[in-house]
Amino acid sequence: MKRIGVLTSGGDAPGMNACIRAVVRTALANELEVVGIRRGYAGLIRGETVPLDRRAIRNTIHIGGTILETSRSPEFRTPEGRTRAAASIEEAGLDGVVLIGGDGTFQGGSLLAEEWGIPVVGVPASIDNDVYGTDYCIGFDTAANCALNAIDRIRDTARSHDRLFFVEVMGRESGFLALESGIAGGAEELIIPEESFSPADVSARLREGFRRFGKKSAIVVVAEGEMPGRSFEIAHEIREHLGYESRVVVLGHLQRGGPPTVRDRVLGSMLGVAAVTALLDGRNGCMAGEVKGEIAYTPLGETGRVKSLDPDLMRIFPLLSE
Amino acid sequence: MKRIGVLTSGGDAPGMNACIRAVVRTALANELEVVGIRRGYAGLIRGETVPLDRRAIRNTIHIGGTILETSRSPEFRTPEGRTRAAASIEEAGLDGVVLIGGDGTFQGGSLLAEEWGIPVVGVPASIDNDVYGTDYCIGFDTAANCALNAIDRIRDTARSHDRLFFVEVMGRESGFLALESGIAGGAEELIIPEESFSPADVSARLREGFRRFGKKSAIVVVAEGEMPGRSFEIAHEIREHLGYESRVVVLGHLQRGGPPTVRDRVLGSMLGVAAVTALLDGRNGCMAGEVKGEIAYTPLGETGRVKSLDPDLMRIFPLLSE
Amino acid sequence: MKRIGVLTSGGDAPGMNACIRAVVRTALANELEVVGIRRGYAGLIRGETVPLDRRAIRNTIHIGGTILETSRSPEFRTPEGRTRAAASIEEAGLDGVVLIGGDGTFQGGSLLAEEWGIPVVGVPASIDNDVYGTDYCIGFDTAANCALNAIDRIRDTARSHDRLFFVEVMGRESGFLALESGIAGGAEELIIPEESFSPADVSARLREGFRRFGKKSAIVVVAEGEMPGRSFEIAHEIREHLGYESRVVVLGHLQRGGPPTVRDRVLGSMLGVAAVTALLDGRNGCMAGEVKGEIAYTPLGETGRVKSLDPDLMRIFPLLSE
Amino acid sequence: MKRIGVLTSGGDAPGMNACIRAVVRTALANELEVVGIRRGYAGLIRGETVPLDRRAIRNTIHIGGTILETSRSPEFRTPEGRTRAAASIEEAGLDGVVLIGGDGTFQGGSLLAEEWGIPVVGVPASIDNDVYGTDYCIGFDTAANCALNAIDRIRDTARSHDRLFFVEVMGRESGFLALESGIAGGAEELIIPEESFSPADVSARLREGFRRFGKKSAIVVVAEGEMPGRSFEIAHEIREHLGYESRVVVLGHLQRGGPPTVRDRVLGSMLGVAAVTALLDGRNGCMAGEVKGEIAYTPLGETGRVKSLDPDLMRIFPLLSE
Repeated sequence: MKRIGVLTSGGDAPGMNACIRAVVRTALANELEVVGIRRGYAGLIRGETVPLDRRAIRNTIHIGGTILETSRSPEFRTPEGRTRAAASIEEAGLDGVVLIGGDGTFQGGSLLAEEWGIPVVGVPASIDNDVYGTDYCIGFDTAANCALNAIDRIRDTARSHDRLFFVEVMGRESGFLALESGIAGGAEELIIPEESFSPADVSARLREGFRRFGKKSAIVVVAEGEMPGRSFEIAHEIREHLGYESRVVVLGHLQRGGPPTVRDRVLGSMLGVAAVTALLDGRNGCMAGEVKGEIAYTPLGETGRVKSLDPDLMRIFPLLSE
Repeated sequence: MKRIGVLTSGGDAPGMNACIRAVVRTALANELEVVGIRRGYAGLIRGETVPLDRRAIRNTIHIGGTILETSRSPEFRTPEGRTRAAASIEEAGLDGVVLIGGDGTFQGGSLLAEEWGIPVVGVPASIDNDVYGTDYCIGFDTAANCALNAIDRIRDTARSHDRLFFVEVMGRESGFLALESGIAGGAEELIIPEESFSPADVSARLREGFRRFGKKSAIVVVAEGEMPGRSFEIAHEIREHLGYESRVVVLGHLQRGGPPTVRDRVLGSMLGVAAVTALLDGRNGCMAGEVKGEIAYTPLGETGRVKSLDPDLMRIFPLLSE
Repeated sequence: MKRIGVLTSGGDAPGMNACIRAVVRTALANELEVVGIRRGYAGLIRGETVPLDRRAIRNTIHIGGTILETSRSPEFRTPEGRTRAAASIEEAGLDGVVLIGGDGTFQGGSLLAEEWGIPVVGVPASIDNDVYGTDYCIGFDTAANCALNAIDRIRDTARSHDRLFFVEVMGRESGFLALESGIAGGAEELIIPEESFSPADVSARLREGFRRFGKKSAIVVVAEGEMPGRSFEIAHEIREHLGYESRVVVLGHLQRGGPPTVRDRVLGSMLGVAAVTALLDGRNGCMAGEVKGEIAYTPLGETGRVKSLDPDLMRIFPLLSE
Repeated sequence: MKRIGVLTSGGDAPGMNACIRAVVRTALANELEVVGIRRGYAGLIRGETVPLDRRAIRNTIHIGGTILETSRSPEFRTPEGRTRAAASIEEAGLDGVVLIGGDGTFQGGSLLAEEWGIPVVGVPASIDNDVYGTDYCIGFDTAANCALNAIDRIRDTARSHDRLFFVEVMGRESGFLALESGIAGGAEELIIPEESFSPADVSARLREGFRRFGKKSAIVVVAEGEMPGRSFEIAHEIREHLGYESRVVVLGHLQRGGPPTVRDRVLGSMLGVAAVTALLDGRNGCMAGEVKGEIAYTPLGETGRVKSLDPDLMRIFPLLSE
């Protein structure tokens, strides 16, 4: 093994740069050359590469997003797209590729490995934290702290008014972000993809909280699901039941930027080292994740399995709501 | 003068607590008693008062929102409401009242002063910064830095994608927040109440920027105007013209919370001291603001005049957009 | 079991309030009364208690430090002190006590349990993260992010100058904080209690880095050890070897304040729930920690055992230094 | 005028990059070429220049420090040094130079203008805010907010203990940073270069505060003056008088990094535009500052005059200390 590539694909996540950096440093320490592939699979198909040395990754560890850029590539989902990608990899002389992304990235990578025999190792990065085979994904902790900061700020102003606040966080198919930031922020209610949403039930619980504990404001954390901005609609529905004025915050991509936290940088660094080590050890078609504090490898094809919310956290949420 | 009251009214703003604290300290140093009136004019009408001493305001200077809570009171706009308010003031034995709020607060206060001869002095607090008679209102600097932090975070992720981002900030009738955070963040475009909005024009300028400078992403700062959440609609319209994917962030009440900045705490402190001093000096029916670095008094009835954006800042915005 | 107490002792740590809050909520949900003991063992000896209900802990989850205050109590180390503490516990009618603190707290608590048969359960809170029996202590993540923020800021200015920077973080007998913030910040060197410090060696490695990679500035993270402020002396020694100008930052108690991170609040909440559950289950003389993602109980007497730095992190540090 | 240079000199300050960026943009809009001079006067003497176009300054507005780097140059203080600098300017074909820095920078620049007839315009950037001829210097607001954040964090932990805390901020010859962050943070005492320091007096006032108001902790803000780290000595002296345990934080260069605030970026942008405009208008040997909200020009030779602290702020400090 003489030369490897690295790309970031899917939604960007804070900590990706720490991971890229660790991949480059580990490769160099093992006398491998490293090539950065720009804009994910779309760039791979087009052969958009850039050599990565120490200098290229200097002063990047603290920056959100990804210096390699990213994209979603419908073309890569077709056999023709993957044929072109394989050709690019051969042309660039890559003996393996580190794929930093989510389970969509890994489904594609799995096919590339199977169809073309190209050694690939994945690293899970997703602010939604919805990748099976790792307890935490790169970017989740930073995004959760961003959401928490929003909840804290809203709490300041919530106390000044009698109002209902909706804080919409990311989470397409999973409520990890909503759950952890909600517990940490003492939110009153969660609306997450894992549970069906009933405006009447949420309203009833809120009314009960107001009645029993004399509260005059409440914060509802909403996972955006399939429809960013849905909180405006939800707020409207609940207002009809509850008769309370409400206000909405939509965090959106705010959660993808900002300096990564310690946890995301350390996790990104550890997994970047692990991915290159895995390639050197001859592993292929797997993802390097962290399970119960240790590096664990999962076949790329399995990373899309449903990852459940921590039942203990689900259980304590209502106990701890403000 | 033996005893004064203080209230916060209208939208809450970070730095209000620093102002309340300065009012209390200055009053105590002048051997006045101080009474806090809760929930703005609504609480005043209902006689909801609380004595304020050193202890009551300890450890509040760094907290966003207002410890006295606030509200909007339709009742106070009626002569009957003000009659009840005047009765509360007499009952509480107040020789004067400091009103912390925006121009809506001051219109009401002006009537109270005229109709009932009650000494009132206003202090401008508004994250929109739309009060005439002061260069800056308490809360504006904190809110602007909150918006700037959002733009910085979006910039991180914007560079990772080819996309258009809309950051919706507060600003019902004025674009101060959008303008200052937009300049500081190097935003590409502003959509503000002071200017008519043409999706075609904005799209044309963005397209030109992409063409001339090879940019692949851009940030548009939108003042929420009369309709929070309007950015989703605007994003849709511009996408139709430009064919670019877009994402929306709605900051909403995020901008009212969080620890106030140095500027807002120092301004709040200075104006709180000035308001009590003004009452002691026999001033009435005026607002203590800061104009060109000095304390200036403006009749409450004039604080609703149109306050224009700084033409120099408007001029340099296009020069400095990223 | 009808009534329990909770105290915080030793150095305060961000997230302690989230833990207190979870103790109170869990107790109330199990129909226990809760009594807060102020100022740690010193307050326990003096019987300084305060009833804790829902209202008492409202709006505290986001605040650094501890609402119960803390202290170090030499008296409690004596049999007489513990006799008085046991009397206070009996007088307050407590059937068990949750001790939130570090291993010093737990040594004392262990004696109290043994000598007087009082049910006690500990929860590890220490920004140094030096408690055996838990992977992470409450407060560590917040403190590490505080240190990281400092390193990031220094990096900004370091690039503007040719200089050596020393960032002194906490860590009396252990280098956890220095190690994790150092990896996350891409620091060049670590000076930690686990390793002997040689100015000549550190200087040689720094000089080599400057020579090989053309760097002109570097950041050294120093654990304060037994002597806060020692970095001024260290900087002086290294300057003698290296001839480089240097600057020093001493973070000190900065790391104990500030809003706790998601991780510290969630950990504090989980462990607070676990501690009360443990008391209800009849456990005694143990600490509820988190090991490999799960709740684990360790006898209080063993929590002072040496806890080693993660060898994987130690190994990758030099690989990843900026 | 066809081509101008820009340099940063002296201590770096957050917002310098916003100023560089505004200089470049304004120059380009006026069809001037712009050359960046690296490492201040030291780089000027050595002819270290780099062309600056739109691309060079993209994505720099939010970064602390200065992308052009800075230095202190003893050589430039000699006539020989300035002769070499003048030769570099001629060689680079510069028709004028924008100097971003403090009064030391401007003394040198003034000589360059007088001795060699080179058009120079200064822009004040100094976190100490000690430049005469401008109300605020670039970097001050960011540094003050950094100091305030430290005080807020300390306040969290201070409440948990009975202790005295010393927060050492920058301020070589002036106490602007200490004063504004001290007011905003509700600090109990200030130790600043403008006033002689008596441990006995400070101790007496602190003791009185403890006695009268039942306080158990206090925060003293110390300007570092000529000797960074002096707070350890001061803490020792006061401990001798007061018998209170104390802790020290030394912020140092932390205050030079971090993302600049809105105020520093807007000020940097305005003054950068003003400086280029001044050169185009034929001004020379002056500094473009902001006085009472408007651009004002001051001869470079006068910028070293003593700039006094705002007497109103000095007056309210004791009124408002926590």
